[in-house]
Amino acid sequence: MDPKSASNLSFILNKPNDVTFADRPVPQLPDEHSVLVAVNYTGICGSDVHYWVHGAIGHYVVKEPMVLGHESAGTVVSVGSAVKTLKAGDRIALEPGYPCRRCGPCLSGKYNLCPEMRFAATPPYDGTLTGFWAAPADFCYKLPDAVSLQEGALIEPLAVAVHIVRQAAVAPGQTVVVMGAGPVGLLCAAVAKAFGASIVVSVDIVQSKLDFAKSFCSTHTYASQRISAEENAANIRREAGLPEGADAVIDASGAEPSIQTSLHTVRNGGVYVQGGMGKSDITFPIMALCLKEVTAKGSFRYGSGDYRLAVSLVATGKVDVKRLISGVVPFKEAEDAFKKVKEGEVIKMLIAGPNEKI
Amino acid sequence: MDPKSASNLSFILNKPNDVTFADRPVPQLPDEHSVLVAVNYTGICGSDVHYWVHGAIGHYVVKEPMVLGHESAGTVVSVGSAVKTLKAGDRIALEPGYPCRRCGPCLSGKYNLCPEMRFAATPPYDGTLTGFWAAPADFCYKLPDAVSLQEGALIEPLAVAVHIVRQAAVAPGQTVVVMGAGPVGLLCAAVAKAFGASIVVSVDIVQSKLDFAKSFCSTHTYASQRISAEENAANIRREAGLPEGADAVIDASGAEPSIQTSLHTVRNGGVYVQGGMGKSDITFPIMALCLKEVTAKGSFRYGSGDYRLAVSLVATGKVDVKRLISGVVPFKEAEDAFKKVKEGEVIKMLIAGPNEKI
Amino acid sequence: MDPKSASNLSFILNKPNDVTFADRPVPQLPDEHSVLVAVNYTGICGSDVHYWVHGAIGHYVVKEPMVLGHESAGTVVSVGSAVKTLKAGDRIALEPGYPCRRCGPCLSGKYNLCPEMRFAATPPYDGTLTGFWAAPADFCYKLPDAVSLQEGALIEPLAVAVHIVRQAAVAPGQTVVVMGAGPVGLLCAAVAKAFGASIVVSVDIVQSKLDFAKSFCSTHTYASQRISAEENAANIRREAGLPEGADAVIDASGAEPSIQTSLHTVRNGGVYVQGGMGKSDITFPIMALCLKEVTAKGSFRYGSGDYRLAVSLVATGKVDVKRLISGVVPFKEAEDAFKKVKEGEVIKMLIAGPNEKI
Amino acid sequence: MDPKSASNLSFILNKPNDVTFADRPVPQLPDEHSVLVAVNYTGICGSDVHYWVHGAIGHYVVKEPMVLGHESAGTVVSVGSAVKTLKAGDRIALEPGYPCRRCGPCLSGKYNLCPEMRFAATPPYDGTLTGFWAAPADFCYKLPDAVSLQEGALIEPLAVAVHIVRQAAVAPGQTVVVMGAGPVGLLCAAVAKAFGASIVVSVDIVQSKLDFAKSFCSTHTYASQRISAEENAANIRREAGLPEGADAVIDASGAEPSIQTSLHTVRNGGVYVQGGMGKSDITFPIMALCLKEVTAKGSFRYGSGDYRLAVSLVATGKVDVKRLISGVVPFKEAEDAFKKVKEGEVIKMLIAGPNEKI
Repeated sequence: MDPKSASNLSFILNKPNDVTFADRPVPQLPDEHSVLVAVNYTGICGSDVHYWVHGAIGHYVVKEPMVLGHESAGTVVSVGSAVKTLKAGDRIALEPGYPCRRCGPCLSGKYNLCPEMRFAATPPYDGTLTGFWAAPADFCYKLPDAVSLQEGALIEPLAVAVHIVRQAAVAPGQTVVVMGAGPVGLLCAAVAKAFGASIVVSVDIVQSKLDFAKSFCSTHTYASQRISAEENAANIRREAGLPEGADAVIDASGAEPSIQTSLHTVRNGGVYVQGGMGKSDITFPIMALCLKEVTAKGSFRYGSGDYRLAVSLVATGKVDVKRLISGVVPFKEAEDAFKKVKEGEVIKMLIAGPNEKI
Repeated sequence: MDPKSASNLSFILNKPNDVTFADRPVPQLPDEHSVLVAVNYTGICGSDVHYWVHGAIGHYVVKEPMVLGHESAGTVVSVGSAVKTLKAGDRIALEPGYPCRRCGPCLSGKYNLCPEMRFAATPPYDGTLTGFWAAPADFCYKLPDAVSLQEGALIEPLAVAVHIVRQAAVAPGQTVVVMGAGPVGLLCAAVAKAFGASIVVSVDIVQSKLDFAKSFCSTHTYASQRISAEENAANIRREAGLPEGADAVIDASGAEPSIQTSLHTVRNGGVYVQGGMGKSDITFPIMALCLKEVTAKGSFRYGSGDYRLAVSLVATGKVDVKRLISGVVPFKEAEDAFKKVKEGEVIKMLIAGPNEKI
Repeated sequence: MDPKSASNLSFILNKPNDVTFADRPVPQLPDEHSVLVAVNYTGICGSDVHYWVHGAIGHYVVKEPMVLGHESAGTVVSVGSAVKTLKAGDRIALEPGYPCRRCGPCLSGKYNLCPEMRFAATPPYDGTLTGFWAAPADFCYKLPDAVSLQEGALIEPLAVAVHIVRQAAVAPGQTVVVMGAGPVGLLCAAVAKAFGASIVVSVDIVQSKLDFAKSFCSTHTYASQRISAEENAANIRREAGLPEGADAVIDASGAEPSIQTSLHTVRNGGVYVQGGMGKSDITFPIMALCLKEVTAKGSFRYGSGDYRLAVSLVATGKVDVKRLISGVVPFKEAEDAFKKVKEGEVIKMLIAGPNEKI
Repeated sequence: MDPKSASNLSFILNKPNDVTFADRPVPQLPDEHSVLVAVNYTGICGSDVHYWVHGAIGHYVVKEPMVLGHESAGTVVSVGSAVKTLKAGDRIALEPGYPCRRCGPCLSGKYNLCPEMRFAATPPYDGTLTGFWAAPADFCYKLPDAVSLQEGALIEPLAVAVHIVRQAAVAPGQTVVVMGAGPVGLLCAAVAKAFGASIVVSVDIVQSKLDFAKSFCSTHTYASQRISAEENAANIRREAGLPEGADAVIDASGAEPSIQTSLHTVRNGGVYVQGGMGKSDITFPIMALCLKEVTAKGSFRYGSGDYRLAVSLVATGKVDVKRLISGVVPFKEAEDAFKKVKEGEVIKMLIAGPNEKI
């Protein structure tokens, strides 16, 4: 594909609930370590929808029109002079956030905490629902033959799950409870299983999601009830055969009752990871954390090695991300796809790139 | 001292605000690995006072009369046949909780999380405000000549602080903020300093406590104001020269606003440890934990190696626990000493053993 | 089975190459936490054979007649008064070494390093090739229905492998090379695979062992040649597609050339674990360790959680230990089985207990 | 100082034992993140002397004339347009190796293992015995007022020691033995002490070095004798009161007998770190490593946070590096200074920059 003649149509958020398509200039390679990528498929993330509806997430506010999208796979079009690991034609998963490489977090291997991170579709940076994208070569991960480009677009949410499960330090033989059975919750459960967890419990309020989780990877499911967090936790422990509590509990929901239940479900000395976004401040059982010596960790995006492992989990068949793809639409139908995600009827929608025939 | 002829007077809580003295039988050694200890000095802990006033802490309820006290130093009177590390006459700090040695937490080196822990002055187990006490030899720590028996009674709260600072993984050159300047907060600050922290900030609402902290170990102090947690955190960061936040924040207060401030004071990727007891449920800035990838840990009592290190820190002069001793009273004045602690006029009161002349 | 009337025949090493059978007294339960176990099957370990042939391993010298064997599964006959987790009739894998529970290593979760360890068939302690065996209940691991007693006898070498692989900190997606394809080497490779390693290379000098390894679990094999360690390492790296070296290298052979090759095969910053026993002193490429910042670890027996995980790996089908069983012989044919192991014609021989009908 | 008019005289190794001075061009800033530094003082390292005498270290061979030196402090002359943390006139310690920032080790926080590292005075890269030096701003560490530029030149070997002691995971209250009392051994002992080690034993064959170590930081010293490694280890354990062995043993000598002694001196489960360079292959007590479950680690240069901590240790007075400075000579006397180091009569020689008046 020749980027000079091809469309670089982009899907742009102007302000809440106001999107347009426009042809943006094809990006120049910023340095000799970068590559130009033709975007083939992009998944829609809850954060994309949140920007579309609200125009902001926390203190990230869309002030100028911003291209949406950050879950993408593409094909390398050209490479900078210093790039040795990729060549034109390589199919890749695209890590969409670029750290400064020079601050304390970057030099210590925690680049996801870089305060100067330039992350796709996080204001003021444009996203990947576009024709061509320039990226540092080391943030592009070659897809093995066994992994399709549509699966490649799922690497991003899978990397989110990998990072969460690594924060939880899930080890073989452990027991894991995952609150929430949306895309990230499902992927956390699948990754925990792939890490060797012997019991993986998915918890949600929607039975159909739990049914999917059971068929996808979970050994147990639990439908949260309108009872106290302690009672839901007691039920989970009893039904999953975890009288002493779970080794690790992951909240992939962001919901206040789920977080409270998490703390009552984890065992003495266990780990709880907050992976889902939600309210800034909640009522939290702090003495459960203290007296049980729980380790609670936040998980934010993904970092060193996460994308690489995500690709490997798909390539080796340990996580079957294909099953999460609810549908694929042409670029021009992007807004419709956003609506479907907003309405909650789908797991993961993919949007084909503007130059992709489907 | 001959335990057969000596008094084994004990200080007993019958019910809230109702204490008596009674002569209890001298304990028998339960097995050949135990030693009999004459108690020389016992410090009063906030939890002792809480039982005295309320008759309960959480779900630990005093149902039968219970001997109070668990911060003790003593002198070995006799040893079981298998004991090789101690002999009569040895001066020791007394670790007051005895785990089962057989459960998962015990076998994995986390005996403080043992569900069958028998902990002094935690119902239904009697405490150490008594004449003689039987303990496993490996929970008695010989005091070097340089450490007095009165300092020995401070080893218990110092071990609490050691455990907290270890949970916080404080390393040389790091910056540490400690919320609360009561006995445990002061000791946490001192231990953090001894662990090589370059900046140690004590935070409290009482200026006189902060003045003491400054003279004791802290490099900076901050008097919390009646402003938001974010604002107090911003002030702490600015005044202590921590624009990116502190590497570790320890809450030794248990107070809701302090915990909230802790989360806003810690840096991206930093550690917050909950060391102080307080309300079961509080309003908690969960998204700060998530987005900054904070590691939050509870800290509960002390475990493997904590007592030993506490003794070493006193013996080498790194933590001058003597300065925390506000007064020493004879055994018969135990209730008065409890009153002084309750009124908050003192840092640490010691009660001499019933057979100790002071 | 009634231990009073049943045979407690034992297989006893008198001195090198001199074994006898004798009826030893059925052991008494030493305390209320112990259980009496009827031994059903016992595997033969290289160390058993070494004692049989040489009468000693290092400074462990057989001075008095000693019952051999320590890889056993059995059935609970009776339980002490304090035992709540087991009952008569339970089928168990038997962890055969009992630590003091009171020393520094024990209290810190490293009981395999206990200097007072009483380990079966390590002089002066008798082993498990006997009819009845008394053990602490917490060192007996109930076998799920899915795990047979013959598989139960393989839990011991599997726990050795679990401990080695944990020392190597093998994580999902990593690349692992295992030197040696005897029973422990095979089990290390299988455990590494179960831990999520994406590449597992078995290395040996015997092609038939490598063929078995390939069919059992390994993704690659390499037949060591009579060339330098650097050259063998270069071959392994090239043939397994590891240009930068392996994340982890495990030596399960104890052979000097294998250990040298290990250091040249591991990547910068990788881990090498010494799991096999061999010569005390060898020529070692110390600058490779230094300049590549390799972490080298010894692995000794097994510790907290290893047996439990080994049972889980068999129960969930992740490690098919059955395939390692070359044969099962009646108790009276124990010496013949030892001969077969010595001659190297088998992988793992099991000896039925004296009261077991096969 | 105006780099246009100032001398950029450089001290250049042509081939073994053949050095010259030449005026090299003042370097251009390679990008907007770099700074130009006027070099004030440079210490002589054993590796500089080794290149001078032998023209090579291992497979690093000096093929073209190479400027020597890499232990430098300097003053910022000008800064690139993106530099915010430094300004002209700032006094800095100069980290002399620049990684690629893009490979696996770099992105995971282990930049010292970067295969594309450009390290000063390691062929083919020039060193810092020159007038002006261009460096990335994030590899220049501002010296607090309390730290002199001569002390600043000692930050490099101190960072080596910090990295070694961190590899050894030395924690408060631990016992540490350091083999070798040359500059790096002395600094390791001092850093271990600053990290809270309660016992620090320096071992060497030269009594005068041990006397200095005792006065500098060590709690004990031991003069190695011409006896076996086991015997020397037994002596160290006995004389330092370490019957169970040391928690950590650091070899800063590179000498074969010292490394052997290290393995026999470390306790069960302890850590041994190889910090000194020496022969590629040595006779090594591998079974001591295996049976004691020793963790052995290499240490190579320094990485994330090491320089920063080294500056802090000097600024807070915890390591008094001044005492290691044996003398300071003008730039023109560089070769004489090298001779003194070669002859072993000094601890650390500094060479003033060509534009520095002393």
